[in-house]
Amino acid sequence: MSTINEIQVAHERIKSFIHRTPILTNKSINREVGAELYFKCENFQKTGSFKIRGATNAVMLLSDDDIAKGIVTASSGNHGAALAMAVKTRRGVVKVVMPKNTPNIKVENVKRNGGEIIWCEPKQESRDQVLKNLLNETGSILIHPYNDENIIAGQGTTAKELLEDIPNLDIIISPVSGGGLLGGTLIYSKSMKPEICVYGAEPKEANDAFRSLKHGEIKKNKTTNTICDGLRAQIGTLTFPIIKEKVDDIITVSESDIIHAMRMVWERMKIIVEPSCSIALAALIKRKKLMQGKKIGLIMSGGNVDLNQLPFN
Amino acid sequence: MSTINEIQVAHERIKSFIHRTPILTNKSINREVGAELYFKCENFQKTGSFKIRGATNAVMLLSDDDIAKGIVTASSGNHGAALAMAVKTRRGVVKVVMPKNTPNIKVENVKRNGGEIIWCEPKQESRDQVLKNLLNETGSILIHPYNDENIIAGQGTTAKELLEDIPNLDIIISPVSGGGLLGGTLIYSKSMKPEICVYGAEPKEANDAFRSLKHGEIKKNKTTNTICDGLRAQIGTLTFPIIKEKVDDIITVSESDIIHAMRMVWERMKIIVEPSCSIALAALIKRKKLMQGKKIGLIMSGGNVDLNQLPFN
Repeated sequence: MSTINEIQVAHERIKSFIHRTPILTNKSINREVGAELYFKCENFQKTGSFKIRGATNAVMLLSDDDIAKGIVTASSGNHGAALAMAVKTRRGVVKVVMPKNTPNIKVENVKRNGGEIIWCEPKQESRDQVLKNLLNETGSILIHPYNDENIIAGQGTTAKELLEDIPNLDIIISPVSGGGLLGGTLIYSKSMKPEICVYGAEPKEANDAFRSLKHGEIKKNKTTNTICDGLRAQIGTLTFPIIKEKVDDIITVSESDIIHAMRMVWERMKIIVEPSCSIALAALIKRKKLMQGKKIGLIMSGGNVDLNQLPFN
Repeated sequence: MSTINEIQVAHERIKSFIHRTPILTNKSINREVGAELYFKCENFQKTGSFKIRGATNAVMLLSDDDIAKGIVTASSGNHGAALAMAVKTRRGVVKVVMPKNTPNIKVENVKRNGGEIIWCEPKQESRDQVLKNLLNETGSILIHPYNDENIIAGQGTTAKELLEDIPNLDIIISPVSGGGLLGGTLIYSKSMKPEICVYGAEPKEANDAFRSLKHGEIKKNKTTNTICDGLRAQIGTLTFPIIKEKVDDIITVSESDIIHAMRMVWERMKIIVEPSCSIALAALIKRKKLMQGKKIGLIMSGGNVDLNQLPFN
């Protein structure tokens, strides 16, 4: 399991390659939910999501020989683009296995950063198989999007910045998919401030983390039929133990509540966030009573939204 | 004509009631246009637009007796909401004459800030007539959205903050509609830094300022058939002389170029700006050669966009 020290070291390592993203507040939303919210805006991060943190940390730790072998990954888009940018800094090349239903903006984002795309079917099994074949054929190095200690440590730097800037938070809410961001957030926050509550926010339609937590062991997603294209991955063997040990709860949210929260952020805050992170606000609203009067950090994990496929009407 | 001194005094007067909005940059857009852009983000301003600056300045200068008479205005939405907020601070009430085709988000914004809406037809003549009747019937005080020295001075504080934060700008581009924002921008910028170039950006479909400048006298809009719902007003008798004397040029932009620029800002910067201000970037792209290698301030005037009526597809 990664440690707070690894997150601190990771932050020193990656800090000159990433933005220290702003933390925004909004009085009108605060009034409506009856709590004091702090939005950590990773939608303004390089490549449009927090993924550059873990990717940069992992890539900086590779040897020149490894870089020369080529890097591969599987990603719904944000990790792919981040990895492409990080590897470009080291003058290497990246192949990204992506599901065919990935939003166009995420595809373009990978390409713009120099990544090569290898398509797979939009199912975990296809993703795993295509990736496995690619690794066998090329002898490249895999950088997994979340099931990797260096990735988890990198993602934990988001919570580090959040707590450095707003030390007196009572609660942090992070989206959960594969568990890299939530895992890193838990390790940093609970070590630094044991009394803080940390919740994961997960779509009802892809609730493997919620069910895994309930059963005490990893359960597979039954569906991934959610608008949150960044939250369709399966919880990892390295991330689940962290979540199981440390998380206060996983809050699952319906599709309509996710869209409602997304609209609220867009209209009131004038920032573009993915459904995959507006889910943190949706979870807060669902558990409003629990959150009353609290100071709450919400990790806005990314802003890569396909403007041709918006859920508003 | 307002003076730089009036803008400086206005800033002292309103500063505790408004946000000092951030100035954002974006490397990927810079690379694409070959210039160094600084986006002054009034979309993050209170009530979602720069209009709170002028409205607050004008309202703060009213006597208690005037406030007691009630305040009225005509507005496509942003000035109405801003005026409502400013008047509420003085415990007064506002009636806003609004065209029936105003986007819903702007209607809600006026209501949320306590303004009462009086509907008119979406034509300048109807707007003027309804407003005139209202003034006659109620004996209220008119605060015009732009043809008012105090409004112009208030709007000029946007350029003041922009030049305080980025003193070495070569160019500023501001949208132009009634001319309050462009007028205030011209007075401040050209007094403070005579060598700076200031351009107005105007929709081809509502090009009264462009034609007025060309003919040296006020010409009426022939159409207002533009997506820029904030740029359909008629240039004012107080604002036009400032523009005529000081502006370097008015750049007119097609609807498709406005939408293209809006999409670029949304996708790359992850911020929500109205078409009425993405037009500043569209004007820059249209006159790309003129802008090469320059440091350019773009006034992002507002972010009140109706998410049910987006122009993307």
